[in-house]
Order: sequence, then structure tokens, then C-alpha cells
Amino acid sequence: MTSQSPIERFYAVIPAGGVGSRLWPLSRASAPKFLHDLTGSGQTLLQDTWDRLTPLSAGRIMVVTGDIHSHAVSEQLPELQSKDVILEPSPKDSTAAIALAAAVLLKREPDVIIGSFAADHVITDDAKFQAAVREAVEVAATGKIVTIGLQPTEASVAFGYIHTGERLESETACQVREFVEKPNIKLARKYVDSGEYLWNAGMFIAPARLLLDVLSRTQPSLYAGVMELAQAWDGPDRNRVLAQVWPRLTQIAIDYSIAEPAAADGLVAVVPGKFEWHDVGDFAAIAELQSQGRKGNLAVLGHGKVLADSSSGILVSDTNRLVALIGLEDVIVVDTPDALLVTTKEHAQKVKSLVDVLKQSGHSELL
Amino acid sequence: MTSQSPIERFYAVIPAGGVGSRLWPLSRASAPKFLHDLTGSGQTLLQDTWDRLTPLSAGRIMVVTGDIHSHAVSEQLPELQSKDVILEPSPKDSTAAIALAAAVLLKREPDVIIGSFAADHVITDDAKFQAAVREAVEVAATGKIVTIGLQPTEASVAFGYIHTGERLESETACQVREFVEKPNIKLARKYVDSGEYLWNAGMFIAPARLLLDVLSRTQPSLYAGVMELAQAWDGPDRNRVLAQVWPRLTQIAIDYSIAEPAAADGLVAVVPGKFEWHDVGDFAAIAELQSQGRKGNLAVLGHGKVLADSSSGILVSDTNRLVALIGLEDVIVVDTPDALLVTTKEHAQKVKSLVDVLKQSGHSELL
Repeated sequence: MTSQSPIERFYAVIPAGGVGSRLWPLSRASAPKFLHDLTGSGQTLLQDTWDRLTPLSAGRIMVVTGDIHSHAVSEQLPELQSKDVILEPSPKDSTAAIALAAAVLLKREPDVIIGSFAADHVITDDAKFQAAVREAVEVAATGKIVTIGLQPTEASVAFGYIHTGERLESETACQVREFVEKPNIKLARKYVDSGEYLWNAGMFIAPARLLLDVLSRTQPSLYAGVMELAQAWDGPDRNRVLAQVWPRLTQIAIDYSIAEPAAADGLVAVVPGKFEWHDVGDFAAIAELQSQGRKGNLAVLGHGKVLADSSSGILVSDTNRLVALIGLEDVIVVDTPDALLVTTKEHAQKVKSLVDVLKQSGHSELL
Repeated sequence: MTSQSPIERFYAVIPAGGVGSRLWPLSRASAPKFLHDLTGSGQTLLQDTWDRLTPLSAGRIMVVTGDIHSHAVSEQLPELQSKDVILEPSPKDSTAAIALAAAVLLKREPDVIIGSFAADHVITDDAKFQAAVREAVEVAATGKIVTIGLQPTEASVAFGYIHTGERLESETACQVREFVEKPNIKLARKYVDSGEYLWNAGMFIAPARLLLDVLSRTQPSLYAGVMELAQAWDGPDRNRVLAQVWPRLTQIAIDYSIAEPAAADGLVAVVPGKFEWHDVGDFAAIAELQSQGRKGNLAVLGHGKVLADSSSGILVSDTNRLVALIGLEDVIVVDTPDALLVTTKEHAQKVKSLVDVLKQSGHSELL
């Protein structure tokens, strides 16, 4: 047993991965979504995430990101210490990223409670977010994997849902019955009407030991791999072991490897989040976020000059060019030095297939 | 009297002026419409005009253009001789440009018949155009100012019309009763239905002496100015006289100074042109021209890479960037190194007011 309070044991982990194909040509393999200011806050999503977590963990924040983003991440987060950076040689999905962070931190602090928060989400009320995490950390200390579920504001088909069970001995937390996949619209309405479902935002707070225990049962070889890596991490053999072990790690999302099996075993709790949360997956979502529901607005992100007449939607300017828009409704214009995208909010999801076409046609320099 | 046949006396004049504001940001003060390939022919409009006139005049072609276009024009027309270039210190509208060319040529060749043809029109059947000019030159030699009028293909409100009178002793030429301004749609239909009206394409073929005679009566001071300039043109005093006289020349369109008054005096004839003729005034017109009436096509002008999904309209690419378009109907995208325009065919005419806004807001570097 430890004498520390739960929040003193807390260590935030930011898995900063994912390209964000639907945000091409702004988001690239070399400069993914989390490295951009998509809210007009003057900071990137990664910096916003860092700032949101700092008060909770007193700066105890680990970032797991791709090798190639090492420089950009260090530049954007000057307070990030090198011991708190895990650089992945290649993308291996969320379980490898979070479990390695958990295993490395566990070796350093046997009682550590980790919380994993994506680098590319938008949350507009930091205080409410922090309150939810604080409660989640308390509940985690009782031996639970705790997620933060968002109160649905509409019957969205874009998110997975969390089916809540009985209330726990905590301010607002409940047991989790199960995680369910993204529903169709009919099912989504049923979920929301029932009042028993929350949106799954993919945030997990748990004792590192518990997370890894579950993983050892569900994915023994992946577990063995991250434990071998963690064993070598703070010593001279890190790179040798990394080169050996990393390529063979199973690629699986943490939802399947840990969250769902743990829920089936009654090990998962949820704290309802009452803050605004956005998974800014495409430019339509960014436009919505920027316009805050106001119709007929043209949102502008970036530093370019703009001249707009009778136009609405979003302009993302990553160049110094003048952009002139006339008579376009719900348009999406993304202007970057080597690629220009013009589409509409209605077609925002199609950007991903365009990126696939670019891949297939060998335009990797633009990805 | 001369022993030369009329066509041997012919000298073509190309007034190459006008910015083409409605074609911004492709067309600029520094690189106006006529210096661009707007048809995808691989040549600029000026080069197309030159090639169309060369067989008629055996290379006797004079170009009147702005000082600042001197270099570009010489580059585009390597066969243009320096004696055949008139550089205007500032724009003074069409009468000054054409009358000065007429006066300079008249001093060199007292029997010269000049024909003036805009540098920025698109004509798709050179043989029919040349046949019309040949007839016009023959009629001009009888002491007429001859225009070439286009057989209307629709009740357009975008052009002025020519009211034809009795047939002349020539293959197809008629007397001109009068030139009429751009009509409203009702009047345009009446004109077209009557069979008596042709579109005014602003082409004038006439003995230089006759043109200047008319001008001496309608605009005596402008006439005196161009005659003074012509007197000095081929001698050592050209620049001194130009600096003195040019700034004071009256700015007036040749339609008002010569064509309309001459028609009232019964001095104007018209040869009906049966070729396709386009005054590519805006991007919608270019899109129409490119798509040749096919619906749902995306026309592409320029050398950029394009990836289009369910899009129609026109993309003009003046950069090397990839341009990706998704789900846009009748869109106009003009991509240049320092400015990007996105609009629709419906709003193509509004580009001019946008250029006005740029002027007023001091963005002259983009004009």
C-alpha cells in the first residue's frame, strides 16, 4: 500500500498518433492533426491537451508518438522531459502505445495510476474535464479501469456508446455494463432516449498494474513484448530491445484488448463528463466547431488573407496567399503550399478516399 | 491610285490592351488576358490572334500595347518587328491606339488598308475568319469602313448589335444602318428574330486615310494629337513628342469616335462572319468554351495536378500544386502563386467587384 493520495499517483499519458486522413491536406503523415491549431486557439491540439492535463498531474505527462514527430513534439511542448517521451519506430495502434507507457511508468512507480487522453480531441471546458478526471482517478484507486463518458447531446452515429450500470460509491461514477460499437441512427436514438448510454471518448484511467494484468490475460504475447521493452527502457539496452521486439507487437485497439474484456469482467467504471467534447474528425466538424451553430458564417483558420463574398463554411489557410471566395455555401477550402482541397461540408468524409487514391497513385510526397 | 490589289495594301493592327478584371487572379495588370492560354491551345490568345492574321497580311502586323507588356509581347511573338510595335505610355482607350497605328502606317504607306482585331478574342475557324476579312478588305477598298458582324446564335445581352441595311455589290457585305448598344433580353430576341442584326465583335477594316478623315471631323483634337505623333514617330523626336502629346489624348472608344458617326454618314459596311467567335470575358465563358456544351465536365487549364470527384466547372492552375475537388458543381477554381479564387459559374461576373475591393483596400500587388 502507498501513503500517497490517488491524484498524487496520477500520470497522464498522451498517445499522439494517427494521421487524420479526413483532414488532408492540412493533416499529413509528417504533420498530423494533433500538431495543428484546429480551433483557432493559437495553440495546437497537442498543446491544448498538455495544458488541460498539467494542473491534474503537476506536469507528470508522458507523450507516446512516432519517431518522425519527435522534433515537432519537443518544439511544441518545451516543458516535456525526455524521460517522458516514448518514440515509436512505427505505428502499432493504441494498445501497444498505452501499454508500453503503463509498463515503463509501472517499473518506475509501482502504484502509478495512468490516464490516457488522445492528443487530438477538443474540450472546451477544462475545469469540468479536470473534475471528471479527478473523480476517475479516485475510482481507479479502488481497483477499476475508469473511462469518461460524454453525455450525448444528439443521437450521433459517429461514436461508440457506453452502456452504464448501477451507481458506484462515488460522486457520479457508474459501473460499465458494456461498450457498444457505433450504432445506426435508430439504435442511436434508442440509446440516447434510454438515458443509460454515454458517448465513448476513448479516455481510460486505471492503475497501470491493473491495465497490464488485463492485457496479460487477453493478449499474452503483446503483454510479454511491452514488459520486455519496459524492463530495458531505462537502461542501456533500450534501442536494441526496441529494434527486436517492436516490429513483432500485435496491432490492436485498446477498446478490444482491454476495455471490452475488462467490462465483461465487471472491472470498468465510467464517470459522466459534462464538458463539451469534439472529436474533430473532418473539416465539417471543424467548421461546426468554429461557427458554434451560427449559420452562414465563414470560419477562417490560419494566417492567410481572405476576401469573402456571400460565402459560408470554412477556410483553412496554411499559406500567405490571398484567398477570394464568392457565392459558396458550406464550402471547405484548405490551402497548403503543395496541395489545395476544395469541397463542401456535405462531402467532408470523402476526403479520406481521396487520400487513398493519392496513396494508390504514388503521390506519397503529398500524404 | 495604286496598282496594288486591296489585300496587298492590308496591314493588321492588334490593340493588345485591357486587364480583364473578371479573369482575376489569372489576368493581372502585369499579365493581362491576352498573354494567357485560355483555350488550352498551347498558345496564348495573342499568339492565336497573330497566327490567324499572318496568312492574310503576309506578316504585316502591328501590335499596340502598354509599355509594361513590351517584353512579354516580344517574347510571345518572336516574328514581330520593332517597327511594328507601338508602346503606349498609359492606356488611352481604343481610338488613340488604333488611330495612332493608322496614322503611323498611313505616313509609311499612303494607300494602306488597316484592320483592327482585339488580341483577346477566341475564334475557332480560322479559314472562315480569313475569308470574311478578305471580303472586308475588298469592300474597304471601295471607300468604306467595314466591320465583321457575327451571325447571332442566341439572343445574347452581352454584345452590341449591328443593324444591317441593303446588300452591297460584294459577295455577302451589307450597308450598316446603325450600331446599337447591348440590348435587354426582350430587345435582343426582337433583333435576332428579325434576321437584320449581327453581333458587333469590334473588328474594323478601312483605309487608314478614311478612318482618320472621320476622326478629324468627330474628334479634331484627338486627330491632331495622333497626327503629330505619327509625324514624329519614325524620326528622332518620337519620345519627346510622345511625352508631350500622349498624356493629353482624349480617351474614347472607337465605337463612339468613328464607327457610330461613320455609320450615320452611310460610310460603314458589314461582312457577316460565319465563324465561331468568343469574347472570353469571364471564367464562366471559358468553362463553356472548354466544355463545348457537355454538362458535368470539369475543364482544366494549366499544368497543375488535379484530382476531381463528382465535380464540374473549370480549374485554372497556374501553380504546380495538387488541386483536389470533391462534390462541386459548376465551380470555378483559379490557383495562382499568390492568390486563389474559388467561386461558381453563376458568380463569375462578380470577380470584377472583388478586384475593385482589392484596389480600394490597397492590395495593388495582387492586381
